[in-house]
Amino acid sequence: MKKIGVFTSGGDSPGMNAAVRAVVRTGIYNNIEVYGIHRAYDGMIAGDIHRLESKDVSGIIQRGGTIIKSARSAAFRTKEGRKKAYESLKTAGIEGLVAIGGDGTFTGAKIFEAEYGIPSIGVPGTIDNDLFGTDNTIGYDTALNTVVEAVDKIRDTASSHDRLFFVEVMGRDAGFIALRSGIGVGAEAILVPETPTYIDTLIQKIEKGREQHKSSAIIMVAEGDDAGNAAEVARKVKEKFDFYDTKVTVLGHIQRGGSPSAADRVLASRLGVAAVEALLEGKTNQMVGVVNNQIAYTPYEKAIKHHNKLNENLLRLAEILST
Amino acid sequence: MKKIGVFTSGGDSPGMNAAVRAVVRTGIYNNIEVYGIHRAYDGMIAGDIHRLESKDVSGIIQRGGTIIKSARSAAFRTKEGRKKAYESLKTAGIEGLVAIGGDGTFTGAKIFEAEYGIPSIGVPGTIDNDLFGTDNTIGYDTALNTVVEAVDKIRDTASSHDRLFFVEVMGRDAGFIALRSGIGVGAEAILVPETPTYIDTLIQKIEKGREQHKSSAIIMVAEGDDAGNAAEVARKVKEKFDFYDTKVTVLGHIQRGGSPSAADRVLASRLGVAAVEALLEGKTNQMVGVVNNQIAYTPYEKAIKHHNKLNENLLRLAEILST
Amino acid sequence: MKKIGVFTSGGDSPGMNAAVRAVVRTGIYNNIEVYGIHRAYDGMIAGDIHRLESKDVSGIIQRGGTIIKSARSAAFRTKEGRKKAYESLKTAGIEGLVAIGGDGTFTGAKIFEAEYGIPSIGVPGTIDNDLFGTDNTIGYDTALNTVVEAVDKIRDTASSHDRLFFVEVMGRDAGFIALRSGIGVGAEAILVPETPTYIDTLIQKIEKGREQHKSSAIIMVAEGDDAGNAAEVARKVKEKFDFYDTKVTVLGHIQRGGSPSAADRVLASRLGVAAVEALLEGKTNQMVGVVNNQIAYTPYEKAIKHHNKLNENLLRLAEILST
Amino acid sequence: MKKIGVFTSGGDSPGMNAAVRAVVRTGIYNNIEVYGIHRAYDGMIAGDIHRLESKDVSGIIQRGGTIIKSARSAAFRTKEGRKKAYESLKTAGIEGLVAIGGDGTFTGAKIFEAEYGIPSIGVPGTIDNDLFGTDNTIGYDTALNTVVEAVDKIRDTASSHDRLFFVEVMGRDAGFIALRSGIGVGAEAILVPETPTYIDTLIQKIEKGREQHKSSAIIMVAEGDDAGNAAEVARKVKEKFDFYDTKVTVLGHIQRGGSPSAADRVLASRLGVAAVEALLEGKTNQMVGVVNNQIAYTPYEKAIKHHNKLNENLLRLAEILST
Repeated sequence: MKKIGVFTSGGDSPGMNAAVRAVVRTGIYNNIEVYGIHRAYDGMIAGDIHRLESKDVSGIIQRGGTIIKSARSAAFRTKEGRKKAYESLKTAGIEGLVAIGGDGTFTGAKIFEAEYGIPSIGVPGTIDNDLFGTDNTIGYDTALNTVVEAVDKIRDTASSHDRLFFVEVMGRDAGFIALRSGIGVGAEAILVPETPTYIDTLIQKIEKGREQHKSSAIIMVAEGDDAGNAAEVARKVKEKFDFYDTKVTVLGHIQRGGSPSAADRVLASRLGVAAVEALLEGKTNQMVGVVNNQIAYTPYEKAIKHHNKLNENLLRLAEILST
Repeated sequence: MKKIGVFTSGGDSPGMNAAVRAVVRTGIYNNIEVYGIHRAYDGMIAGDIHRLESKDVSGIIQRGGTIIKSARSAAFRTKEGRKKAYESLKTAGIEGLVAIGGDGTFTGAKIFEAEYGIPSIGVPGTIDNDLFGTDNTIGYDTALNTVVEAVDKIRDTASSHDRLFFVEVMGRDAGFIALRSGIGVGAEAILVPETPTYIDTLIQKIEKGREQHKSSAIIMVAEGDDAGNAAEVARKVKEKFDFYDTKVTVLGHIQRGGSPSAADRVLASRLGVAAVEALLEGKTNQMVGVVNNQIAYTPYEKAIKHHNKLNENLLRLAEILST
Repeated sequence: MKKIGVFTSGGDSPGMNAAVRAVVRTGIYNNIEVYGIHRAYDGMIAGDIHRLESKDVSGIIQRGGTIIKSARSAAFRTKEGRKKAYESLKTAGIEGLVAIGGDGTFTGAKIFEAEYGIPSIGVPGTIDNDLFGTDNTIGYDTALNTVVEAVDKIRDTASSHDRLFFVEVMGRDAGFIALRSGIGVGAEAILVPETPTYIDTLIQKIEKGREQHKSSAIIMVAEGDDAGNAAEVARKVKEKFDFYDTKVTVLGHIQRGGSPSAADRVLASRLGVAAVEALLEGKTNQMVGVVNNQIAYTPYEKAIKHHNKLNENLLRLAEILST
Repeated sequence: MKKIGVFTSGGDSPGMNAAVRAVVRTGIYNNIEVYGIHRAYDGMIAGDIHRLESKDVSGIIQRGGTIIKSARSAAFRTKEGRKKAYESLKTAGIEGLVAIGGDGTFTGAKIFEAEYGIPSIGVPGTIDNDLFGTDNTIGYDTALNTVVEAVDKIRDTASSHDRLFFVEVMGRDAGFIALRSGIGVGAEAILVPETPTYIDTLIQKIEKGREQHKSSAIIMVAEGDDAGNAAEVARKVKEKFDFYDTKVTVLGHIQRGGSPSAADRVLASRLGVAAVEALLEGKTNQMVGVVNNQIAYTPYEKAIKHHNKLNENLLRLAEILST
């Protein structure tokens, strides 16, 4: 293998740049040329492919976003799109791919490999931490810090005013961000999609806090909670319990940006190096992760189909700590 | 004067604690006892008044919120409420007040002085920066930094994805936060209540950016803009121009919290000292501010009635810089 | 067991407050009274012991430092001191201890248990991450983020000026902080006590960077490196290679403070809960840790004697990425 | 005027990039071509001059450092150097200059204008805030926030341990950073070059704090204080008063980097716009500043010769607040 391509796909996450840098530098270290494929599969189809040298990835380890841009491609889901993509790669002489992203990214890579035999290694880059085969995805730790810092600010004003805050964080199908950040900010309750939410139980909890003269309460809500998003849950609570001044905050895309945390930079660096080394060893169709602090490889199929389960001990912990 | 009271009222802002600390320490320096009145006028009515010593305000200069809590009081708007408040102060022996807050706070203090002769000096504590008689209110600078840091994160992800973001910041009647933070983040457009917003002009601007291959656009929207809040403006734009993936973020109460900036800590310290010194000199019914880097006193009446005007040069500047 | 004591000892670390909070809340949840022992063993000797209720630990999860203070005790190393400490605990009715700290803390607890039979569970709180029996110590992740953020600022100015920076971080015997933060900032070289440092090799590396037109270089130095601290290494380099303007920064105690990261808050919460539950189950003389994302218990003896080894793969990684 | 050049010179400061962006965009807005002169006068001599377009300054407003690099030039102090510089500018067709920097920068520009008639406008970019003709220099506010955030972390650990910290900040000739940041962190004492430091008085202050059971003390030291730098002052204090565990921290070049604060971004934007407009109006040999919130122009000669005076009221304030 003499030339490989790297791209970032799906929702971007902090640390993607650190991963790209690691891929490029590891390539160079192994006398391989590395090419950045801009805007993921869309750019692969369009041939938007450029050589990346050491200096091109200098000074990007600390930057959020992705310098080679991300996209979700409709065209790549068509046979025709993938054919064009293959032709672009052939023209550029690219023999292997490092695909940084999530579920959708790896699904695309898997189909592409089956059809055209281009080997690829996946790197888990998403703030959602929902991928099987790695303890943490790149960006998850940074997103947690972002949420925790934002909610700390809300706590300041909540405590000054006897207020009840509903804070919505990302998590359409999974409560990873809500659960850990909820513990981190000392939330009075944490609502996640994985467990049923009972409004009456929630109100009891808030009332109990009030009786203990807690000056404020913060309820973390994963956007995909079964009781609705933060605004809906707030409305349902307010209908039955109107003691506090109630406010809703939706953190939104702030969670996807920002300079990556130390942990995410190290994780991204490790995975980027391991991805290139795996390609060179002839591996393909696998996602590289860190499991129990060791590099581990998981077939795309498994990484996509299974999902990390929410740590139930942490749910119990949240219960104890909001006493 | 041997005993004075201090309270924080209305929407809390970062730096209020630094101001309370300055009031307490300046009192002690002048051999005066300082009492904290908890939850502002409500606590004054209820007699929730406690002596504050030097150590009570140690280690609070860096904290957001207010350790003596804030509130908006309905009871103080009644004759009966103010009578009770007066009796509480008399019981405690309090002869003068430092009122930290905004419009509503000073209006209350003014009526109270007229009715019961309790002298008071106001300290401008609000993130909105809309008070006449001071170049900056305590908390404004911190709020700007909070907005700028949050939108920097959004820019990371916006740039990675060709996205159009509408970011709503506080400002029901005034665009101070939107304008300065909009310049600070390099917003493509800034919508403020003080000037009319034309959706067609806004779309032209966004389209022009797209033609220049700008990868993203961020539109700052003061919540009280005449074209609606961020969600409404986004909807109106999307109806006519659907090139970008459009997202709305509402920063909400994050803007009221956080550790105060260096500038807000210094400002709060200066104003807290000046407020106590003014009381001791027999001043009353005035707000203390910093104008052109000098301490200045403005009668409550003037501070409440007039409002700072938006700097029109900055509007022009924003226009030039989004070229 | 009806009453337990908790204390923080040795060098403080961000997240100690979160651990104290977890101990108190878990006690209350299990109908146990929890007492804070101020200034660790010194306060135990002096009887400086106070009941902690739920509200006392409200609003501390986000604060650096430790509200019950830390100290290193000379007196506790004497038989007489320990006797007094035992009498204080007896008077207060305390039947078990949660000891938050490092090596020295656990050594003291072990001797104390042998002499007086007071059971104790240790919680690893130190930024150095050098304790066997836990993947991470409380405060390590925060310290890494603090270093990375500080060095990012240095990189800004280094890049603007063609400068060579030597940055000294904590680590008298171990390079954990230097290694991970060095990877995180993209350091050109990382000097740790665990491996020999050759000045000539270091200079070759810097010269190679210069030939590749790198505009700056940052060398991370653990304070206990065999070639000396940052100032000494800088001097040795400058003697032989004088191309760059050379600067030395010593981050010092900044590394011990700051609001804990999300990961440290969650870790501290988990360990605090597990420590109390272990005491209730009759465990003693053990440190609680998180190993491979599971709670694990390690006898004090083992935790003290062994040390975590530096991950050699990360050293290799640093080499590749500075290419 | 059809072509202008912009450069950043001397010690870099956060916000220089925001100023460069403003210069470029204002040029484009006025149909002028803008050229970046890399590494200041050195690059001018070498002809390292490149056209900057709108997209080149996109996404730099939030970055510390300077994308066109800074330098201090020995060659430009020679007649020969300046001659070459003039020839480079002539070749490039550059008719006017925006010089972003401090004293030395403007001195060079003034001599150059006298010799070759190239008009220039200066923009004050330095963290030291020591330039006459502007209330704040670009970078000063950010540096204050950096110092305050760092010392907040030190305070956490100082409070946990009964420690005495000496923190050295930049300021060879002026105490601007020490004074404002010292007030901002609630320092127990602030040592600046402008006033004499008496070690005995300092010790009395520290002792008084100890008697009041203050758990820690932080002494801010401007590097150019008459009693020596932080290490020297610490040694002198320790000789006579040895109650506390004493630590020294030197913040160093961290103070020059980091993402600029909101205030610095707005200031840099205003000054960048005003500088280009001044050149177009035929102004030269002047520094543009913001005085009392208005744009103001000061002849280089005056800006260089005079210095801002330390606000003596703030010194008094620091005294009161450390009570």
